[in-house]
Amino acid sequence: MAIKHALPVAREADFAAWYQAVITEADMAEESGVRGCMVIRPWGYGIWERIQRLLDDRIKATGHENCYFPVFIPLSYFEKEAEHVEGFAKEMAVVTHHRLISDGKGGLVPDPSAKLEEPLVVRPTSETVIGAAFARWIQSWRDLPVLINQWANVVRWEMRTRMFLRTSEFLWQEGHTAHASVAEAQEETRRMLEVYRSFSEDVVAMPVVAGEKPENERFPGAVETWSIEAMMQDGKALQAGTSHFLGTNFASSQNIRFQNAEGQFELANTTSWGMSTRMIGGLIMTHGDDDGLRVPPRLAPWQVVIVPMLRDAPEDEAIVAYCKALQADLAGRSAFGEPVRALLDLKSAKSTAKRWAWVKKGAPVVIEVGGRDVAGGNLSVIRRDRLYRDDGKVDSRVVPRDGFGAGVAELLADIQSSLHIEARHRMEAGIRRDVTDMAGLERAFEGEKPGWVEVQWSRPTGAALDAVVERLKALKLTIRNTPIDAAAVDGACLFTGQPAVERIVVARAY
Amino acid sequence: MAIKHALPVAREADFAAWYQAVITEADMAEESGVRGCMVIRPWGYGIWERIQRLLDDRIKATGHENCYFPVFIPLSYFEKEAEHVEGFAKEMAVVTHHRLISDGKGGLVPDPSAKLEEPLVVRPTSETVIGAAFARWIQSWRDLPVLINQWANVVRWEMRTRMFLRTSEFLWQEGHTAHASVAEAQEETRRMLEVYRSFSEDVVAMPVVAGEKPENERFPGAVETWSIEAMMQDGKALQAGTSHFLGTNFASSQNIRFQNAEGQFELANTTSWGMSTRMIGGLIMTHGDDDGLRVPPRLAPWQVVIVPMLRDAPEDEAIVAYCKALQADLAGRSAFGEPVRALLDLKSAKSTAKRWAWVKKGAPVVIEVGGRDVAGGNLSVIRRDRLYRDDGKVDSRVVPRDGFGAGVAELLADIQSSLHIEARHRMEAGIRRDVTDMAGLERAFEGEKPGWVEVQWSRPTGAALDAVVERLKALKLTIRNTPIDAAAVDGACLFTGQPAVERIVVARAY
Repeated sequence: MAIKHALPVAREADFAAWYQAVITEADMAEESGVRGCMVIRPWGYGIWERIQRLLDDRIKATGHENCYFPVFIPLSYFEKEAEHVEGFAKEMAVVTHHRLISDGKGGLVPDPSAKLEEPLVVRPTSETVIGAAFARWIQSWRDLPVLINQWANVVRWEMRTRMFLRTSEFLWQEGHTAHASVAEAQEETRRMLEVYRSFSEDVVAMPVVAGEKPENERFPGAVETWSIEAMMQDGKALQAGTSHFLGTNFASSQNIRFQNAEGQFELANTTSWGMSTRMIGGLIMTHGDDDGLRVPPRLAPWQVVIVPMLRDAPEDEAIVAYCKALQADLAGRSAFGEPVRALLDLKSAKSTAKRWAWVKKGAPVVIEVGGRDVAGGNLSVIRRDRLYRDDGKVDSRVVPRDGFGAGVAELLADIQSSLHIEARHRMEAGIRRDVTDMAGLERAFEGEKPGWVEVQWSRPTGAALDAVVERLKALKLTIRNTPIDAAAVDGACLFTGQPAVERIVVARAY
Repeated sequence: MAIKHALPVAREADFAAWYQAVITEADMAEESGVRGCMVIRPWGYGIWERIQRLLDDRIKATGHENCYFPVFIPLSYFEKEAEHVEGFAKEMAVVTHHRLISDGKGGLVPDPSAKLEEPLVVRPTSETVIGAAFARWIQSWRDLPVLINQWANVVRWEMRTRMFLRTSEFLWQEGHTAHASVAEAQEETRRMLEVYRSFSEDVVAMPVVAGEKPENERFPGAVETWSIEAMMQDGKALQAGTSHFLGTNFASSQNIRFQNAEGQFELANTTSWGMSTRMIGGLIMTHGDDDGLRVPPRLAPWQVVIVPMLRDAPEDEAIVAYCKALQADLAGRSAFGEPVRALLDLKSAKSTAKRWAWVKKGAPVVIEVGGRDVAGGNLSVIRRDRLYRDDGKVDSRVVPRDGFGAGVAELLADIQSSLHIEARHRMEAGIRRDVTDMAGLERAFEGEKPGWVEVQWSRPTGAALDAVVERLKALKLTIRNTPIDAAAVDGACLFTGQPAVERIVVARAY
């Protein structure tokens, strides 16, 4: 039987339109009327708050403290960077005035008499202003390491925007650290990459490949850039987090020096690392289906939603009481080490409308309670990760009320795990490792959902690397990273014919 | 014996300089190099994170959901407001360009070819953009109430800034709600005022007077503005939170309409309410002393700090092990319904320097552990709220290690309560209620730390109110609010001689 799905468009039909439909139908976000900026609605923002809290716990557990730096950065701070850093991006929002004045025609204009002496830039990242603070804070080896993080909004003027994936304003965390030695800074870079990797796998249930970016994909000024890359359902790669070892490059331009134990002055080694609201785009394209979003239980603002099936009848009262007792029971229990987040949805709407609203939002468990359930001491339970039966009907299962609460932690853990396993199987099935020449690479990306290809190469640099990048670009491909856990190499580089030294992932990407 | 205090300046000597000294010495915040914007350092930001989490819990418990709206607001959104709202503030940061370009002399300038067609304003508040969203979201009475909140940075260009109290950029939460009826919106306004009042008292340990602002102090466009006012140690008032009933004023200019159950269109009634990083300024001026800050345990990023007294001797190892066991014991316990936040300070610094650093930061409990403590199974415990003995020496008490963990929740609760009681006594002693004429009012504010005066008045409006405001202004006084729990009136208005209808608080203010 053909299933009539909840979304107006299917993934197979038009992936980009499907993505937008999920965002709209799941009440994730909407256009704001401000170019490239979105309004993040409660369900979308609730997921972001969960990401924040769980990632923040991990950032603090690894010894970092949160700070807050100004949203405005004086233009002069960027001049040094622009001079020294190739690839420095200049698309930034610039504040030039500090007052509005009437234009005499009922409108407002920037007041010419309130022009700033030095324009201010709305932070695209806080690298420069935090570097200046590090230079003030760090004098001696005793002051090191400095391990800080900031949760903030940042702005990068984007010409083509897409909700969550590329917006002019986005929310993120940016970690910045300074260390006495190269080894310690490299260890920090890898530690935070591992935090991102395990967070994506364990919390977002989104499998990723962690590895080092090739030279041409490094953050401008970085000595090493590492990333986690996730495979979306259309086969494209999404870079979901990066961790940079900056060596002494930034310390040198920002004068971050310390006196070592021997009394000599040295430049500090710094790192930076970030994850953003882009992760929500990754979550949608990893777990969404043709009925909307499916949120992994650890990230769901509401893990269990209870929908009473009311009929404006006398028995309604008993149904609501039964639901309230269930909600209280669940909220008093714990899953993943936190109280269960259970909502009783008492809004004035039809219960079928509520069911489908929560299905589209992707609440992991929806429980419907009607008069028959109350009479029988039962619940009608829908698992969002297994929405349909084999016959195409919604798989709503009548289960005894007794024992449901005691089993809810296990149920949620099972859903978390099943989403993760499903995504991991898809990613693993989507990576080809048998391509050995350019013709094969070209063929591998001919289909509709080409997936990724892992090949071995000689890690060329300079002009030789540029040549590889250009050949890939012609196929709309990029090198994502060198997976940490890739197999050993054996044979020649696919691009240069020279002996291969490592394996890399090649893919189309967001 | 004269005590030599930890700060370079005492409250009595120069309150403003003392305030700045606390901020510096407690590592709360520092100048950023950007006019009017501060860097909030880990200890200051840690307190803000505690405020956020505990206030957010209360905001959610009263049914609100968090959203996120853009940092930029198109200039045209303000034109309507500027037309209709008297007192509309025009000091805002205006973005006019979206790209930087080289000036050919090694510098950068806004790119003239990247001038925005419509300038963007960095949000001073999100009233207009949220109002526009409400107009999209609300169609029917079924959509009401809409109860949302946002945590964000906002910018108001300030000429004279002071850390935490008045900065060009600050952090806050802004709640915005829409309701079907006046009564419901008024109830919401008062509910959130009560959230702020109880949060200030119970969490910040900062006593406040909650009440309605007089007409001249209302938020532009509001029908009612309510506030909580706290008394600082110099006797001045600090407005620490406001809650506004906006009637249909904003709904009317932003077209927020709904179809009622009878099918007729009505304007919604809206509210808004906010609390900001200003609260940290209030915390400092309420609880700080001449040795630095004293943070109420519920807000302290670290409630108990353990300082091992090491001597580069073999016994150091045993001391550190003893301290680690203590830290683990405390971290496994609960206070105020949360895990105890206990830090073992292993930084390379002298233990006396650490003691005083934590005293200045105001950690509620500092525990020093030396060889003698380990040998005797003891701890040397300093309570920050009772730092000195009667003889002027630091009150470090040797207590048995056994039983300390079991009593830590009670100890922290006692410190929380003692700070609250101390502040409450000071506020109550600082409010005079015996002033009945202008001469008396003038005399009441002649001293150094004049406190507040509560008087009765006839609640004049229009020109009569203006006259009162002017007379007060000449004395550098303002009307703070009409306390909710003020005594009944009896007699004449101090200003107009007409029959009094209510009591108001008059004070100097930040």
